Amino acid sequence: KSGCYANTNMRLKLPITCFILEIILIILFGVLVEYDEETDAKKWHHSNHSQYDNDFYYRYPSFQDVHVMIFIGFGFLMTFLQRYGFSSVGFNFLIAAFALQWATLMQGFFHGMHGGKIHVGVESMINADFCTGSVLISFGAVLGKTSPVQLLVMAVFEVTLFAVNEFILLSILGTKDAGGSMTIHTFGAYFGLMVTRVLYRPNLDKSKHKNSSVYHSDLFAMIGTLYLWMFWPSFNSAITAHGDDQHRTALNTYYSLAACTLSTYAMSALTAHDGKLDMVHIQNAALAGGVAAGTAGEMMLTPFGSMIVGFLAGIISVLGYKYLSPILESKLKIQDTCGIHNLHGMPGVMGAIVGAVTASLATIEIYEVFPDVADNKRTASYQGAIQAISLAVTLGFALVGGLLVGFIMKLPIFGAPSDASCFEDSIYWEVPGDEGSHEGQLTTVKTEEFAKPEETEKLN
Amino acid sequence: KSGCYANTNMRLKLPITCFILEIILIILFGVLVEYDEETDAKKWHHSNHSQYDNDFYYRYPSFQDVHVMIFIGFGFLMTFLQRYGFSSVGFNFLIAAFALQWATLMQGFFHGMHGGKIHVGVESMINADFCTGSVLISFGAVLGKTSPVQLLVMAVFEVTLFAVNEFILLSILGTKDAGGSMTIHTFGAYFGLMVTRVLYRPNLDKSKHKNSSVYHSDLFAMIGTLYLWMFWPSFNSAITAHGDDQHRTALNTYYSLAACTLSTYAMSALTAHDGKLDMVHIQNAALAGGVAAGTAGEMMLTPFGSMIVGFLAGIISVLGYKYLSPILESKLKIQDTCGIHNLHGMPGVMGAIVGAVTASLATIEIYEVFPDVADNKRTASYQGAIQAISLAVTLGFALVGGLLVGFIMKLPIFGAPSDASCFEDSIYWEVPGDEGSHEGQLTTVKTEEFAKPEETEKLN
Amino acid sequence: KSGCYANTNMRLKLPITCFILEIILIILFGVLVEYDEETDAKKWHHSNHSQYDNDFYYRYPSFQDVHVMIFIGFGFLMTFLQRYGFSSVGFNFLIAAFALQWATLMQGFFHGMHGGKIHVGVESMINADFCTGSVLISFGAVLGKTSPVQLLVMAVFEVTLFAVNEFILLSILGTKDAGGSMTIHTFGAYFGLMVTRVLYRPNLDKSKHKNSSVYHSDLFAMIGTLYLWMFWPSFNSAITAHGDDQHRTALNTYYSLAACTLSTYAMSALTAHDGKLDMVHIQNAALAGGVAAGTAGEMMLTPFGSMIVGFLAGIISVLGYKYLSPILESKLKIQDTCGIHNLHGMPGVMGAIVGAVTASLATIEIYEVFPDVADNKRTASYQGAIQAISLAVTLGFALVGGLLVGFIMKLPIFGAPSDASCFEDSIYWEVPGDEGSHEGQLTTVKTEEFAKPEETEKLN
Repeated sequence: KSGCYANTNMRLKLPITCFILEIILIILFGVLVEYDEETDAKKWHHSNHSQYDNDFYYRYPSFQDVHVMIFIGFGFLMTFLQRYGFSSVGFNFLIAAFALQWATLMQGFFHGMHGGKIHVGVESMINADFCTGSVLISFGAVLGKTSPVQLLVMAVFEVTLFAVNEFILLSILGTKDAGGSMTIHTFGAYFGLMVTRVLYRPNLDKSKHKNSSVYHSDLFAMIGTLYLWMFWPSFNSAITAHGDDQHRTALNTYYSLAACTLSTYAMSALTAHDGKLDMVHIQNAALAGGVAAGTAGEMMLTPFGSMIVGFLAGIISVLGYKYLSPILESKLKIQDTCGIHNLHGMPGVMGAIVGAVTASLATIEIYEVFPDVADNKRTASYQGAIQAISLAVTLGFALVGGLLVGFIMKLPIFGAPSDASCFEDSIYWEVPGDEGSHEGQLTTVKTEEFAKPEETEKLN
Repeated sequence: KSGCYANTNMRLKLPITCFILEIILIILFGVLVEYDEETDAKKWHHSNHSQYDNDFYYRYPSFQDVHVMIFIGFGFLMTFLQRYGFSSVGFNFLIAAFALQWATLMQGFFHGMHGGKIHVGVESMINADFCTGSVLISFGAVLGKTSPVQLLVMAVFEVTLFAVNEFILLSILGTKDAGGSMTIHTFGAYFGLMVTRVLYRPNLDKSKHKNSSVYHSDLFAMIGTLYLWMFWPSFNSAITAHGDDQHRTALNTYYSLAACTLSTYAMSALTAHDGKLDMVHIQNAALAGGVAAGTAGEMMLTPFGSMIVGFLAGIISVLGYKYLSPILESKLKIQDTCGIHNLHGMPGVMGAIVGAVTASLATIEIYEVFPDVADNKRTASYQGAIQAISLAVTLGFALVGGLLVGFIMKLPIFGAPSDASCFEDSIYWEVPGDEGSHEGQLTTVKTEEFAKPEETEKLN
Repeated sequence: KSGCYANTNMRLKLPITCFILEIILIILFGVLVEYDEETDAKKWHHSNHSQYDNDFYYRYPSFQDVHVMIFIGFGFLMTFLQRYGFSSVGFNFLIAAFALQWATLMQGFFHGMHGGKIHVGVESMINADFCTGSVLISFGAVLGKTSPVQLLVMAVFEVTLFAVNEFILLSILGTKDAGGSMTIHTFGAYFGLMVTRVLYRPNLDKSKHKNSSVYHSDLFAMIGTLYLWMFWPSFNSAITAHGDDQHRTALNTYYSLAACTLSTYAMSALTAHDGKLDMVHIQNAALAGGVAAGTAGEMMLTPFGSMIVGFLAGIISVLGYKYLSPILESKLKIQDTCGIHNLHGMPGVMGAIVGAVTASLATIEIYEVFPDVADNKRTASYQGAIQAISLAVTLGFALVGGLLVGFIMKLPIFGAPSDASCFEDSIYWEVPGDEGSHEGQLTTVKTEEFAKPEETEKLN
């Protein structure tokens, strides 16, 4: 029994993984990465620009909003678990800091090479944060059940596959997906669901009592929810074209989210026990409107269309939490801690379909959004078909990729926690006691018992 | 007795209200709303603009700051109550998401119509958030004592009256009030005070023990306070004219708030028990400087003038919390949970007066702020008189409106909580237990007893 | 014994200090401060600018990010203490609100005078927030052991010395230090360390049990950490030159922080007990990469160089927390509550050295960063030497200044808390009980016993 726990000790595993990964990153950055035209002193000054033409002023405020979503939004959204707050926000921090560096290389390799060098600037920063978001979505499915080393391994492969899928969609097929309904949400969700399927734990009910929230942990999670909700208009518009495109995308997303919030509250009260609102729904389903507007948000969706999309997304998402998640767990053995299928999976697919339909209805007036349509290289319905094909490609990459990466993550060397230690910070963190909390103290004592074997053995 | 409680069940009331409201919104948006010149692909591209001229780049960062104030600022400011955090942040979220959509229609109807259509863009988004802020101020007065359905009903009417009052001030009278000392703060405060007066509960002391904070709930509230404080310069400058006006307004507000903070700490230590600081004062009165600079902030108030305004606002606000609020409750039967009279009411009136005085002292140099003064259509003192009249109009609308809407909200069908269930999340939310908190568990048990009648009857 | 405690009563001390300081500020602002060309209605309109040329649009989003770092970042980072959250975030708020006003005057006096007047605008706001940051760093060293009056006294003197040191570096020596590795971090850290050395308490172990975190206080602290981490690119780039400089600085800092995060996690697991991560390291050392990129961030450091800097900064910082801090306390009697030596001291010195080396390697291509080098007035190696001399000057100012100011703060009239009352909110704040927390209630009772003498005497 003790050998089983000894594996979870991170004293060498985590440092070795982090150091190797970071040193590889530094070497590759040294060889491959250079400033782009807008960050390089010489290049920028030799060109005859007004300072304002620097893309920094068009995109940096949006970048910072996205950055907050990645670190505070995703990080705190997952702090709802009573005894996994350190890991939620802390592992989110770690894998995001890794993934954004790795994504810069992978995405740059596929569509940022200039004379053998990867060019970086504010747009690459946004794209790297986007790719990171996809990894964090997958993290939500396995939250509480994986070691930080497993998560870093997942990030290495998921970022790579993300970059390939994104390259096929955006560069080869000419798909439009500025807010990432497909590339970020659908991909991240189905990848993560497949990973958690492979990592299925039949005896997870051993830690069932910890897989729930306490009063203040739900309030911490609301910080994450609200930052995601507020900044989603910036997320969807961060890399759309300058001018009306950024403006329109932000506006559409704003209305989609507002409508989604009302349908979420309605459905939560309607479906939950005794007419009482369920924090899980509010924290998650109210965001589905942002996901569902990810593809069509930059198009001429209109506020009216956006609100319909958001309204339906909220309904679908709550229904998913209430009725579909239990079935996925019992029938398909998919243990989805955060319910990413309801927040990112179904709304992502919905967003892809909305995008395909909207694209196929495009008229000449929205020429700039679809350059190939504007140039008469493509018909609108052809573009719509491309959008639909892109969804299928994304689902394929996500499911096959998640399957393979799940098996890699399953290797015992990566130190997955035991079933009884899931959803528990104290196997990875020095955890202080609670002020006057007797049960809390008891918990601490208990988990120290679990930890004992690690201390006596110190194998690795 | 049980019938009384049964009314509070939200299983059907809340979904029906949300669905009806959202469907009406969607239909009206479909009929009435279209993109403005800066968000519409065709219109923007046919005009010969630089991308940078798009108002998005002038105002979107300010919009996001305002957005954070509405959802995080107001939402978390109200989480100070020990057992009402879910409702504070959650109902704030719900009514704000509704109000911003409804405000877009109401404000657009009065001053955004173009050929029978309401035009939307970043400026309408900011204005809708502003109007929403006014509703959330009123929410502060009735916090803990109203059902979400009552709050939605309040929002429907308050937004409408806000838009009428705003139209009279800004479009008919030519009043300047960019930061909303009158239109937002004075209106929202006196409207809310009148509503809570109508909803007076003589036996509110039954839930007195829950109408207070615990240690960590006060820290959550400080998140709200600080975001309001930090972003208030963006709030006051969000819709002022481009260039020096936005710049100056932000600067003035920054100094007003800084000075207000020092006088707030001073007065709190001076008046509170034993020289100890009172979190209620710090969380609220330190913000009064932003309210009081709402009208004159865009004028040539100077940093010196701004600091005097903020300094006095902090003093007045703390004195209000300490001495006036108890009198309002005992003599005038105004139960003002958050003390909005001290944070928004008195400082709002003060801001209106400061604006009137500053306007009447305006010289030609500030022509752009007062176009009619610049064009010699008005004298400065005439503008000052208009500003003063606008305060009276606003107070009239707020008090009469609040009176009427209060009576509507009193209808039993909207499911107000019983006196003993006030300031208690568990009648509206699934509330998890506290980690090792015995009193917390007791509370949960008790409130489930309250909830029992609802379960057995399930009338509606 | 009671006399000792009576001194800590703030009923008159704090109000008198706040009122005197604020009134002096208001008078000096009235005499000395006026709008600059970009905030003054007359001046801006008489010049022939596009609205977009107003510096507001170049810098205000960065200003707001810095503002969040000052009030939320620093404030919540220090809430990790179990019973000092009100003071951490509340005193941070107070002294920051004071310091930014005072800094405007002091910095303006040295480098913002135009015809006898101090000009203010968005750049002075950023600089004032920067100077405030330095004071808050010093606050971290004495956290829990000083009264708010002592902190205000410290701020008065520290801001003044900061402005003098900054003037010598930037204006006389021509040093480059846009992100303040020297002027902000090194200065604030060594100043604070000297102050805490002078205020050494041999019997501080009396309050040792309160000098630690609880579960949720560590989560609150993570809010501070993440906002500092996310917005550090804005901090370092806030006052660099428009265009590629701002862009490049943000980019460099982003990579430095990401690399620093991985080395921090690695070192924390490697050095901490049993391979478990230590929240103290994650909350603090992961930020060292931002500090260390403060000087060289605007130079052509390259992403590669930035990552190396961040990587090493994280390692040094964790080692400092683990091994150096205990030695500083036991051997040098430096009680550094937040470990500012590890987060700001060593990484600040490192940043200064990196800046000196990078400057000395500068070629003509980065002419704009070093105007004197570009104009052939200086060689690159001369600039490098100047950078190194600046570090020595800063250390001198900080150490001598901290020594003198420490002795001033030691005067009994400023009401330092007793050894047993350190790290305890309840001597300065009305503190509510905890929900069902028995130990919490006990603590409250105990501290009320401490407070008794104050109540009976009420001397001042």
